[in-house]
Amino acid sequence: MYKETNLRSVVKGVSWRVVATSTTMGIVYVFFGNLELAIATGVLETAAKVGLYWGHEKAWQRVRWGKKRIDPFNLWFTGLPLSGKTTIADRVYEELQKLHIPLERIDSKDIRELIPDIGYSREDRNRHMKRIGNLIKTLQNNSVSTVASFVSPYRESRKAIREMVKNNVVVYVKADVETCKKRDYKGAYAKAMSGEYQNFSGVNDVYEEPQHAEIVIDTDKLSVDEAVDIIVKYIKKNNVK
Amino acid sequence: MYKETNLRSVVKGVSWRVVATSTTMGIVYVFFGNLELAIATGVLETAAKVGLYWGHEKAWQRVRWGKKRIDPFNLWFTGLPLSGKTTIADRVYEELQKLHIPLERIDSKDIRELIPDIGYSREDRNRHMKRIGNLIKTLQNNSVSTVASFVSPYRESRKAIREMVKNNVVVYVKADVETCKKRDYKGAYAKAMSGEYQNFSGVNDVYEEPQHAEIVIDTDKLSVDEAVDIIVKYIKKNNVK
Repeated sequence: MYKETNLRSVVKGVSWRVVATSTTMGIVYVFFGNLELAIATGVLETAAKVGLYWGHEKAWQRVRWGKKRIDPFNLWFTGLPLSGKTTIADRVYEELQKLHIPLERIDSKDIRELIPDIGYSREDRNRHMKRIGNLIKTLQNNSVSTVASFVSPYRESRKAIREMVKNNVVVYVKADVETCKKRDYKGAYAKAMSGEYQNFSGVNDVYEEPQHAEIVIDTDKLSVDEAVDIIVKYIKKNNVK
Repeated sequence: MYKETNLRSVVKGVSWRVVATSTTMGIVYVFFGNLELAIATGVLETAAKVGLYWGHEKAWQRVRWGKKRIDPFNLWFTGLPLSGKTTIADRVYEELQKLHIPLERIDSKDIRELIPDIGYSREDRNRHMKRIGNLIKTLQNNSVSTVASFVSPYRESRKAIREMVKNNVVVYVKADVETCKKRDYKGAYAKAMSGEYQNFSGVNDVYEEPQHAEIVIDTDKLSVDEAVDIIVKYIKKNNVK
């Protein structure tokens, strides 16, 4: 959140003065056909009004009426591990920052580093989702929108998020499990297939496809740039007015 | 965060017009001693400028220059269980909300409900504090100030919070452990003394008194009203300008 500095109010006053005094001088000139009188009126008016304008600005800054709270949204990226969620979400976050709205990026990895004792069982994941939902809610209460990326493989936990937050926009990053395995630069799929990782979505645990996603990104057909473009356009159209 | 509605800009324009046009009419009247001419000029000027003013307002709303980010603070209440932290912090939160700054209340109880697996050992508490620190930091990144109340009995964890957040204001709610036991409406001290609760600060675990608290509230000497008054005055003087 911002407050306006005195200097801003002064410069805004001068900028208004240029617009306003030229109008006054024009009016006086048209009325009296006398350029000198028009200029004299302009000078006098300027002297009187720059100060008045500044005072008027400062007085209005104390008035809260007519200011509308910005309505926050939550962009929720779901998809298989290595489907491309984080890559796309990072880029979308970058683009949306240009809109100068209060915005926070939340990624599964950062949160798990913070709360490291969470497992990957169905119950653990669902409880974890409620914490994330609560964090998003707290941010939303303060007008902060969020770009969140979590595998979030279960319908019930995505539903819990939807019920907890406002203006939820689910982006399903759809990728074939075979494609994800090929992108497996972390060796995560390999570990899951060897049994080292349990409850790994897409290998030894289910990923329940979203049925009500606002946006579906088919990574087999769309480039990252195209995906980012679709998502940013959606947000600009529906959430940032 | 707020944005200004069109109606606000229009009403602000009209309010400015009243101030500005009376000045113009005064000037023209003094100059020409002709009331009719003064009125005619005023009418013409009004017609021209209400629209101009509105456009000028809307144009400036797109300019970010001269807006200063609000600097958030963290009010951190520490003290023995039942020392009165939550009571005072709740009242302070209520008072500070009247300043219309983005503000969030964080209480130990709410967070422990959210992340229920945390123990009360020294290590668990310190790790927990880092999570809280991270939450406060995330809120501060978005200009949100916080009113936090946690027993936080160890110096190292309070130090960790101080290092993680900006404008940290520690309020030590000082109460004699015997006084706290008398206030024991929850039966918590009784359970600690019977051994049912382990690591209970003030009974079977240490509470390390803060040595650098910005504010010390001696609950034996001050009423809740007096304590709230001292804290709110401190914040108004040092943190909300």
